[in-house]
Amino acid sequence: MKIGTQAQRTSAISASNAETIVVRGRDLCADLIGVVTFTDHAWLLVTGQLPDAAQRRVLDATLVAIAEHGLVPSVAASRMTLSAAPEALQGAVAAGILGCGSVILGSADAAARLFTAILARAANESLEVSTRAVLGEMRAARQPIPGFGHPLHKRQDPRVTRLLAVAAETGTAGRNLEVARLVERLVPEIVGKPLAMNVSGAIAAVLLDAGYPLLAIKGVPMLARTAGLIAHLLEEQQRPIGFVLAHEGSAAIGYDGRRPDGFVPGEG
Amino acid sequence: MKIGTQAQRTSAISASNAETIVVRGRDLCADLIGVVTFTDHAWLLVTGQLPDAAQRRVLDATLVAIAEHGLVPSVAASRMTLSAAPEALQGAVAAGILGCGSVILGSADAAARLFTAILARAANESLEVSTRAVLGEMRAARQPIPGFGHPLHKRQDPRVTRLLAVAAETGTAGRNLEVARLVERLVPEIVGKPLAMNVSGAIAAVLLDAGYPLLAIKGVPMLARTAGLIAHLLEEQQRPIGFVLAHEGSAAIGYDGRRPDGFVPGEG
Amino acid sequence: MKIGTQAQRTSAISASNAETIVVRGRDLCADLIGVVTFTDHAWLLVTGQLPDAAQRRVLDATLVAIAEHGLVPSVAASRMTLSAAPEALQGAVAAGILGCGSVILGSADAAARLFTAILARAANESLEVSTRAVLGEMRAARQPIPGFGHPLHKRQDPRVTRLLAVAAETGTAGRNLEVARLVERLVPEIVGKPLAMNVSGAIAAVLLDAGYPLLAIKGVPMLARTAGLIAHLLEEQQRPIGFVLAHEGSAAIGYDGRRPDGFVPGEG
Amino acid sequence: MKIGTQAQRTSAISASNAETIVVRGRDLCADLIGVVTFTDHAWLLVTGQLPDAAQRRVLDATLVAIAEHGLVPSVAASRMTLSAAPEALQGAVAAGILGCGSVILGSADAAARLFTAILARAANESLEVSTRAVLGEMRAARQPIPGFGHPLHKRQDPRVTRLLAVAAETGTAGRNLEVARLVERLVPEIVGKPLAMNVSGAIAAVLLDAGYPLLAIKGVPMLARTAGLIAHLLEEQQRPIGFVLAHEGSAAIGYDGRRPDGFVPGEG
Repeated sequence: MKIGTQAQRTSAISASNAETIVVRGRDLCADLIGVVTFTDHAWLLVTGQLPDAAQRRVLDATLVAIAEHGLVPSVAASRMTLSAAPEALQGAVAAGILGCGSVILGSADAAARLFTAILARAANESLEVSTRAVLGEMRAARQPIPGFGHPLHKRQDPRVTRLLAVAAETGTAGRNLEVARLVERLVPEIVGKPLAMNVSGAIAAVLLDAGYPLLAIKGVPMLARTAGLIAHLLEEQQRPIGFVLAHEGSAAIGYDGRRPDGFVPGEG
Repeated sequence: MKIGTQAQRTSAISASNAETIVVRGRDLCADLIGVVTFTDHAWLLVTGQLPDAAQRRVLDATLVAIAEHGLVPSVAASRMTLSAAPEALQGAVAAGILGCGSVILGSADAAARLFTAILARAANESLEVSTRAVLGEMRAARQPIPGFGHPLHKRQDPRVTRLLAVAAETGTAGRNLEVARLVERLVPEIVGKPLAMNVSGAIAAVLLDAGYPLLAIKGVPMLARTAGLIAHLLEEQQRPIGFVLAHEGSAAIGYDGRRPDGFVPGEG
Repeated sequence: MKIGTQAQRTSAISASNAETIVVRGRDLCADLIGVVTFTDHAWLLVTGQLPDAAQRRVLDATLVAIAEHGLVPSVAASRMTLSAAPEALQGAVAAGILGCGSVILGSADAAARLFTAILARAANESLEVSTRAVLGEMRAARQPIPGFGHPLHKRQDPRVTRLLAVAAETGTAGRNLEVARLVERLVPEIVGKPLAMNVSGAIAAVLLDAGYPLLAIKGVPMLARTAGLIAHLLEEQQRPIGFVLAHEGSAAIGYDGRRPDGFVPGEG
Repeated sequence: MKIGTQAQRTSAISASNAETIVVRGRDLCADLIGVVTFTDHAWLLVTGQLPDAAQRRVLDATLVAIAEHGLVPSVAASRMTLSAAPEALQGAVAAGILGCGSVILGSADAAARLFTAILARAANESLEVSTRAVLGEMRAARQPIPGFGHPLHKRQDPRVTRLLAVAAETGTAGRNLEVARLVERLVPEIVGKPLAMNVSGAIAAVLLDAGYPLLAIKGVPMLARTAGLIAHLLEEQQRPIGFVLAHEGSAAIGYDGRRPDGFVPGEG
């Protein structure tokens, strides 16, 4: 059945014949394999152009920053899934990727949209006026400020300091980082408490400043996290903890529903 | 409920406190972000050690080789999923990852197990005897030979030539590649038709020879493919073809089940 | 790491000890297995109460209505995934479920929210005034009207007629169905063209009228579709078409990116 | 690109035109919606025939038996995923489905294959000889016996007793159940310790005896569990515990990797 009006019937990413594979206009085997890094290739795939040295270093830095942070919910879900279904590593990776949503790893995307909205509005007014207006509207709508605040790194996320240094060192720091710092400065006044820029906010700002496209930013934490998931799933094959994670989690949750006469729940 | 006997209650990948994040024994912010490439970091996460220059180049080459090959089934599934559920990029990436199974992108893993099995057996006999024995058993059990044969690149997959050149240039080529070439040479005689080494076979051989762990090889195509999926999903947001892919696919399939009297199927 | 402020540490769905399993306050083995239907059980799980005969019949009717409609995108994605990864049926089911998003199978949820919003507003004004106001705002914001319009069944979706008849026969038809009919009547005037109530709109209206909770409506098409997916995946194991679907889809898509000199794409 | 040799280009499940939707040869609207139960429909979709009353009752009993058992790993993974990505209920359902693998919910499938293999072999020898032979081979290969043993319900899983009673009451109990009982009787002698038939073993036996197809049995726990997942995800929206589950799980796991001088891990 035909759904929607997708008139477009072309793609510009890749083509091949029996001898040659073309990726973004380049001969994969002659020009890319063994020549460029995976980070170059990821940038090329998304933008159609190879990055310059500064862009490559910024993308590398963000991918390294966000790849791994211990037994966070998506990693726990992934390791539990492998324990239950060891025949399908891809299923466990997919379960981990499914936790890269709006609340956790997806907030780089939301922060990037915030910075972009503030900058669009600043075409007609000062950056501070524009930032105050956008933050004020979010506060009025009781929306969280994406890219700011962290449950563990409350004072200062050390990854943020480092990413901002990389942006400075590569000369890519620009208007988005200026907006991010302005948001951080205005938040105490507008929200009523300080919220330090977190790693998602920093990733959004430095990638946009380096020329990485807004619509692809949500993919960066997913790509990074896939590397972390693979390490966890290798460890899960060798020293499994998936069922321990599930058991200890469930043991912390009581049952408060109705119960038949005389029924006493077991140890969970 | 306690399932299984997972006595182990530790992990060796990452730890953190409010100031410091440790990944594989290193200070993430001081020693890794802005210092190492994402490929270095992926190797470190999996093995606990940073790669040397040759290992890094081999892993980069394999990731670049396998990241993208057009509208293959997993990419089609991913783009259809985004068309149906645009609110969840992570769901579309996960759907694409779920297609990295034993038949398509997972065959690097199966090829790596094959080479490892042949080498283990060769401890007590010549490599050729061992290879003949393992291939003969697979043939008798009517199993396919993982890592050999390709629907499009029948004569020679150009990616294989390039990956083998990178292995030679980096001085990492070793026993696994020797086995892979031996398998390719013996296949016509044992299977009855030639099957050229494919990109999965080459990836398996060059990674094992470079010291990458067997149990993590299945993750390499998934990590690589995630980069390709993100590019396709960016394009899908801008120039959607997901419903076209589904419609043209379904239009090619007839209905051969029972039908009520007088019913004539529509155009599908 | 502690994320958020989830103070709640209980669940009310199920508890067990070595002899007894309690589900929603009932003894699973004594009171449910062999006694209630799966549809009863699904209602009980979600609401905490067994349905009456009318509620059971309405939920059965909606589940039967939406379980299967041919090789739609989510089914195509699921069958392709099984072809690529036959070792993991659960991965193929998951890939199909991931296509139950806001555009396709999730629109019952959006329609239910629309009806609920109109009824909430109608507390202070007539239903028609409230409906006109909500539709007018959606039109001004260029939002689609969820639950109305279908690419194939333009005049009248036969499933809608039947679901409305079931609602009438069971005496459950109520205010939500009244709203749905009102929306259908006002759409030509407000949107500028007729849009017939589709199966998602009908499912939303009849389930809400029967007392099914708003927040669980999104789950109904997923549960129903899982039954359809299992049938397709059984057929895929016996008579595979997954790669045909992918091939025919990709063959319809041209390459319009840059190409190296002299490169001519193959047949796709 | 053409992969494999899928010559088949038809499907027998569903067809439609603008007025009529056909499912398995029946008019969906005239003959199924409002007429049959969802369980009937699930049986029809898979087998092409509506079940008789006994078959319907057996399928209902198995679906009710396996739909819910508390905060098992797949439910924990699903609730964590919704906490991290609340915008995509389908992603959380998919994450839960991905845990229906060979170790946990997929063992009904493995048990069904075991019973089928024993019965096939029993064509030429007594059932006990055949059962001893198959169990002996599994024991020699150190394979677990699928469908037998449970971490909580060690003596007797109450669901098994009930499912066997339903098979008796409906007159469907047959050769597969006979095999299952024989396996349970012989296990102490062959494995060296008793393993009671578990719910997966009972589901496999009663479904096969009722005429449900072997290749679709793996789908039954997935369909059932989807109903349980929807209930948990409704509760997760109202009283979230996903991050508590993850936090309590990770807090139980220590870090035993290398650490920089002076580094002390935080509370996890």
